[in-house]
Amino acid sequence: MSGKFIVVEGLEGAGKSSVIALIETLVNAKGHKTITTREPGGTPMAEAIRECVKQNWQETVVEETELMLMYAARAQLLANVIKPALANDTWVIGDRHDLSSQAYQGGGRGISQTTLTTLRDLTLKGFSPDLTLYLDVEPATGLARARGRGELDRIELSGLAFFERTRARYQALAEQDDSIVTISAMQAMPDVHQQVKEVVEQFLQ
Amino acid sequence: MSGKFIVVEGLEGAGKSSVIALIETLVNAKGHKTITTREPGGTPMAEAIRECVKQNWQETVVEETELMLMYAARAQLLANVIKPALANDTWVIGDRHDLSSQAYQGGGRGISQTTLTTLRDLTLKGFSPDLTLYLDVEPATGLARARGRGELDRIELSGLAFFERTRARYQALAEQDDSIVTISAMQAMPDVHQQVKEVVEQFLQ
Repeated sequence: MSGKFIVVEGLEGAGKSSVIALIETLVNAKGHKTITTREPGGTPMAEAIRECVKQNWQETVVEETELMLMYAARAQLLANVIKPALANDTWVIGDRHDLSSQAYQGGGRGISQTTLTTLRDLTLKGFSPDLTLYLDVEPATGLARARGRGELDRIELSGLAFFERTRARYQALAEQDDSIVTISAMQAMPDVHQQVKEVVEQFLQ
Repeated sequence: MSGKFIVVEGLEGAGKSSVIALIETLVNAKGHKTITTREPGGTPMAEAIRECVKQNWQETVVEETELMLMYAARAQLLANVIKPALANDTWVIGDRHDLSSQAYQGGGRGISQTTLTTLRDLTLKGFSPDLTLYLDVEPATGLARARGRGELDRIELSGLAFFERTRARYQALAEQDDSIVTISAMQAMPDVHQQVKEVVEQFLQ
């Protein structure tokens, strides 16, 4: 027996946190153990890498640096948390995973697909989530919500055009991949949660 | 006009620091401005990445994580320190550069050449030092010297076999590349410095 890996993706302010809490409740209700993770982060070393990548440095942050730090943190989380949990029959609910790098560093920053694929293969070696829920939100709406929560970090300060490109890549990748379900996060929260519930309960059967 | 990039490489305890000081003196004596760098590190962000990679974490550090952190730090140093200095007619004397990743992560950890080349190309985009001095030392001798300086970090604690593989890779790469000069660091220090002086003065002409 082994657990399943469900990932919640989307721009800042898409409502990932409350959706993750809902999924945990639904999976627990079926009698499965769960843990939640966040990326970048989730181990002591990966959290230190998260600090490096999110901090508002005075120096230029090279796009390749950002990309390599994201994958470095992912490698730690995968080896030390996600894989051991799944092997121990525990379900993992992830706040972001590889799709974030594809969307933010690929779509947003413009890093080439060849480079992304190389780092993904190096880090994940074919591993991928069982189900991804992509919460689709307009950047202006999402950022306004995120701003309401406090100070924005370096990546959140990247500007609207960056988030438009990131969203477009999310949408394009979700369309191509049957394991990614798109849910509009522009709806009222109860409607979002109702849709999440339907998708997750179907997956649980 | 532009500066030159001279790198000093070798295992822990090979005597890099005093050789770097000597090279700086020689280059300054010719009327060139100089700065020194160290890798991983050399910018605020790269120093934070250095902390991540060197710390004695309780968790497993995945080999690919170590590799990506080394290149992330290198990308920052190259963009924010090395290239601007060279463009400003300043010579850069580096304590380690890409050859360290080839030797430690390639030879020592056994990361494939394909992976190393991919990350090197992604980070350096063809950039390379003008001259590299590789100080060759037996691991046992070098580590005994390093131990005398204080506590060993995570990488320095990797064990003698790791450093034997690292040294073998250093030696093999130095043999293939005309821009790398091997100097035995098993000699008495005055003899090492005399050889360094000859190599650098020839390069300066």
